[in-house]
Amino acid sequence: MCTAISDNGGRHLFGRSLDLECSYGESVITLPRAFRFYFAHTEIKYPHYAMIGAGVIHGGVPLYYDGMNEYGLCAAALNFPARAVYQERREGKLNLASFELIPYVLMSCESLSEAREALSELNVTADAVSASLPPTPLHYMISDGTGAVVVEAMADGVHIHENPYGVLTNSPELPYQVLNLSGYMGLDSRAPENRISKEVDPENYSRGLGAYGLPGDYSSTSRFVRAVFLKNHTRPTASGCDVGRMFHIMDSLAVPDGAITLPDGRGVRTVYTSVADTADKIYYFTTYGCRRIRGVRLDKLEGEFLSSVSIEEHEDILFKELPI
Amino acid sequence: MCTAISDNGGRHLFGRSLDLECSYGESVITLPRAFRFYFAHTEIKYPHYAMIGAGVIHGGVPLYYDGMNEYGLCAAALNFPARAVYQERREGKLNLASFELIPYVLMSCESLSEAREALSELNVTADAVSASLPPTPLHYMISDGTGAVVVEAMADGVHIHENPYGVLTNSPELPYQVLNLSGYMGLDSRAPENRISKEVDPENYSRGLGAYGLPGDYSSTSRFVRAVFLKNHTRPTASGCDVGRMFHIMDSLAVPDGAITLPDGRGVRTVYTSVADTADKIYYFTTYGCRRIRGVRLDKLEGEFLSSVSIEEHEDILFKELPI
Amino acid sequence: MCTAISDNGGRHLFGRSLDLECSYGESVITLPRAFRFYFAHTEIKYPHYAMIGAGVIHGGVPLYYDGMNEYGLCAAALNFPARAVYQERREGKLNLASFELIPYVLMSCESLSEAREALSELNVTADAVSASLPPTPLHYMISDGTGAVVVEAMADGVHIHENPYGVLTNSPELPYQVLNLSGYMGLDSRAPENRISKEVDPENYSRGLGAYGLPGDYSSTSRFVRAVFLKNHTRPTASGCDVGRMFHIMDSLAVPDGAITLPDGRGVRTVYTSVADTADKIYYFTTYGCRRIRGVRLDKLEGEFLSSVSIEEHEDILFKELPI
Amino acid sequence: MCTAISDNGGRHLFGRSLDLECSYGESVITLPRAFRFYFAHTEIKYPHYAMIGAGVIHGGVPLYYDGMNEYGLCAAALNFPARAVYQERREGKLNLASFELIPYVLMSCESLSEAREALSELNVTADAVSASLPPTPLHYMISDGTGAVVVEAMADGVHIHENPYGVLTNSPELPYQVLNLSGYMGLDSRAPENRISKEVDPENYSRGLGAYGLPGDYSSTSRFVRAVFLKNHTRPTASGCDVGRMFHIMDSLAVPDGAITLPDGRGVRTVYTSVADTADKIYYFTTYGCRRIRGVRLDKLEGEFLSSVSIEEHEDILFKELPI
Repeated sequence: MCTAISDNGGRHLFGRSLDLECSYGESVITLPRAFRFYFAHTEIKYPHYAMIGAGVIHGGVPLYYDGMNEYGLCAAALNFPARAVYQERREGKLNLASFELIPYVLMSCESLSEAREALSELNVTADAVSASLPPTPLHYMISDGTGAVVVEAMADGVHIHENPYGVLTNSPELPYQVLNLSGYMGLDSRAPENRISKEVDPENYSRGLGAYGLPGDYSSTSRFVRAVFLKNHTRPTASGCDVGRMFHIMDSLAVPDGAITLPDGRGVRTVYTSVADTADKIYYFTTYGCRRIRGVRLDKLEGEFLSSVSIEEHEDILFKELPI
Repeated sequence: MCTAISDNGGRHLFGRSLDLECSYGESVITLPRAFRFYFAHTEIKYPHYAMIGAGVIHGGVPLYYDGMNEYGLCAAALNFPARAVYQERREGKLNLASFELIPYVLMSCESLSEAREALSELNVTADAVSASLPPTPLHYMISDGTGAVVVEAMADGVHIHENPYGVLTNSPELPYQVLNLSGYMGLDSRAPENRISKEVDPENYSRGLGAYGLPGDYSSTSRFVRAVFLKNHTRPTASGCDVGRMFHIMDSLAVPDGAITLPDGRGVRTVYTSVADTADKIYYFTTYGCRRIRGVRLDKLEGEFLSSVSIEEHEDILFKELPI
Repeated sequence: MCTAISDNGGRHLFGRSLDLECSYGESVITLPRAFRFYFAHTEIKYPHYAMIGAGVIHGGVPLYYDGMNEYGLCAAALNFPARAVYQERREGKLNLASFELIPYVLMSCESLSEAREALSELNVTADAVSASLPPTPLHYMISDGTGAVVVEAMADGVHIHENPYGVLTNSPELPYQVLNLSGYMGLDSRAPENRISKEVDPENYSRGLGAYGLPGDYSSTSRFVRAVFLKNHTRPTASGCDVGRMFHIMDSLAVPDGAITLPDGRGVRTVYTSVADTADKIYYFTTYGCRRIRGVRLDKLEGEFLSSVSIEEHEDILFKELPI
Repeated sequence: MCTAISDNGGRHLFGRSLDLECSYGESVITLPRAFRFYFAHTEIKYPHYAMIGAGVIHGGVPLYYDGMNEYGLCAAALNFPARAVYQERREGKLNLASFELIPYVLMSCESLSEAREALSELNVTADAVSASLPPTPLHYMISDGTGAVVVEAMADGVHIHENPYGVLTNSPELPYQVLNLSGYMGLDSRAPENRISKEVDPENYSRGLGAYGLPGDYSSTSRFVRAVFLKNHTRPTASGCDVGRMFHIMDSLAVPDGAITLPDGRGVRTVYTSVADTADKIYYFTTYGCRRIRGVRLDKLEGEFLSSVSIEEHEDILFKELPI
């Protein structure tokens, strides 16, 4: 359960939430140009591009949930249950394990255009990072300021969908989500016009009625519609900070703990939300336990070791003293 | 456009948002026990109770949008357009101008029970705080850990409604909002059971489908339903901090700037969100321009002067340095 | 559970459905000008107006569910559970038992204007037609070609609401139904315009998407919205027969047996549907068991005895022989 | 715009509506065992099976919209705009023009099982019945008492989907419709249980609220959901006549003229509704202009000529005389 939004209004920002019933000790990880990443079936050129993003480090391997590279190319992996199908290695293809796709693309491509080309012969393999960690069903959104594509490896092959909406959530597949949007296309942030009745105008009893019918639950389909609506109907904060706007949009899509309850009684919550600022190359994030925005700059590009910043969960409240 | 929630899970918290197209220079204002408040038609005993809340100071008079007193009694005023009707002063009644109601109740009542009794003969008058500031159409929610009431002064008189849901938004009147909830009563944070088809089970394709149909727009009616759902289906943050939970609920109800657009093109946004912790007597708040939680303690009860803390709008980001 | 629609397009038609878990042996009953109707607390002038409508005859008293008089004034009684409150007889009022209201109005008023005046001092009494038949909670729509009013006797008194929509269903009260309509005011029979996305147009994948969001269940609120939509967006049948159009609208509001299921397992169904043609003074009806339209003319105005036509339930199928 | 429903409750019935802005002079056409049907690319054995259904005769060729054969196998063609893709003739395939599919299947297959096998190598060709009548984009539902399949010829090939719901409407393709149903799976004909609030029960103000959220518009997706709901929640008429039940379901899905309005201002209406009774081999139908059920028996199986019964549009009202 996750939401990703690529937005090109003003500057290109890339936001994503991770919605789960637990956290796996995520941190923000920087991967410099000389870091050795051993791909199971392929190679990349060195030095590659540096990148930053959130994920976990498993046996020395960074498992990125999302990230941005030094050119501002972004990618995110989102859960894709009951849809993702991974394959055996296939000769003549670009074979990438599901956890290798994000680092491969961000370490080797400068732009979405290059990523499209690099992935044109993609085969997503079922390799696990280790015996204890089987692959997760995932699909991906990759974007820069020129657009976004979604990569879905399914039973009938790998689909690379152009995604002009710049939004991705979870299963079902993107074409379903896009078509489901059609029912809501008349929704507006402005007041509704009366079309139902010729004889009398219903009272416009509340601001906001023009979007009456916008779905408010936390299913993947409803979050997709809401994300498209909000992306198209919101504006920067007064300080001109588009990052603030993106966090406000993500707040409307975030899952308060328990708003989804699993059969075992656990609640799903938005573990973290990140917004990558591709102009300034800053990776911003908030966590469920601490809503203050934190930022990490992608400014140390050289080196061969991963470095990481933990995502602590302590609410960082600023207490104000009253003047005497 | 505002939302207020009174929650008694664990400790009594009182949250509210202010959703407007502009701000009026709101601050957090503390009113101590000896502050002189000149009511137009009535008197209170001195010393009265101290209180804290958000609002603006106009000609020395605190215009509280919401507040909490030293006993933990809380009140909020929310827009009530096309419904609120204020009257001339009436003999034998408790005559309070619309802007006097919150301070009167919080300065003179220890509990909801006392407030119910104090307001039993209420007449809300059309007095303005000054010639330049005509009264705003408002209704009110007052609550402590025992429950909540809503006060609505309408054309047919003053209604004091018991409000077991502990939620208030805007027009229409509370009884409408409560009845409108009925259509959504089957919504659940758990996965839905199949009842539509005897022959085959539809795929439960996404977590969260049990609440499919929950309204997601920002009208008063949709926020009311969403607030009730979230209040009843969320749980404290891991640190046991119910304040964090309340801010997460309020985030789901907050209006990203422009998600409501006025005829003149201005966007409505959630100017501020506050959560009053009635156990520790701390007033927490966030603003549209700064999402970090700030807190002000109601701990200086004596004195005769208002003191206030401005609600600055600068996003307070914590930049993290990577380890070398 | 019932729906009534007054429509003035072309000619004034008055349609209603009766939605129940059983039938009580309804018939179409004509009441001529000299029929003696003994009102419990009031009198009418003789000869009064003749009328026709559906109902049952109990101990010689016609209990009309709806009807039309010789001037084309129409009235219908619809279930109003948990809302209708009947009173003791009150001096100085027009005291009418709930079952007397329709005959009183139709026997004594030529027009809606006269009915408004006649009912201005109405008190609805709790008198039963017999000890075995306690009064049913009802509200009423009365209309002619000039408009419609709704009469609701509630705990706070008798309300006579102007009803410019010309639609009535069941509880809650009319003002609630009218306000609930506001959320659907943007719905249209035409294709939707894209307002949700600035970047790309969702596919208009099906005719009819402009009304996506129209409620389809059989609750009173959803039928009210659907009735207003259909009344305003449909047109006469090719033969110019507005009666056909009204039956098509009523079909969309009718309850197939079981679409509502009671706690005891019984299904609710649309027992009968009637359309009164006020120009030609014909009362048309269909029943759940026989969809062929039947018609009874109100053309025998003189006389003192009720006459009735049973509403048989045998499906009247026309078998066609193929040419050899 | 059409809806088809295959129902196996009691006896197997097959209902369909044709929803269009005009009619093309449809009639009910019987095709006997010795009728010569010249298929463009294939042959069938003679004598074939007799069939009956609705359609038009064009240059001696019956263009069936739907039909039933003497074994009770049924098929219907429904509009499938922007999805259907027809091909050139392909060697080694069963090449059928879109208008040939229904007669081919019903003339040559006794059962759904045989139809599945016959169509396993299907290629739908773009042949037109004549130069003046280009092929219509269609998909098909074929069913008997054992189940139903849907045939969709699309850009990526011919799909033959098992359809356990037994419902078909229009575009998008069946897998989309089936998935879209998931959001509504909790809807019930019974009263809802309160799950939204722990503290207080919302009022169950109306019968039918358990299905609140059922879509009521006339788009293909909303009709699909409504058809599944009604098929699963309705029961036979009191006389045990399942045909009556099916017409009641179809009434709830039928389009009153104008409820969909085209850009050129024309209204879409349900031109005809048919219900094939596969036990008694009777084809029942109603038309927009005449709601009385008419029936044609498939009982003259021998012969070589088509025979047809026109679908007249005159409302066949039965006037009842009052007893004197």
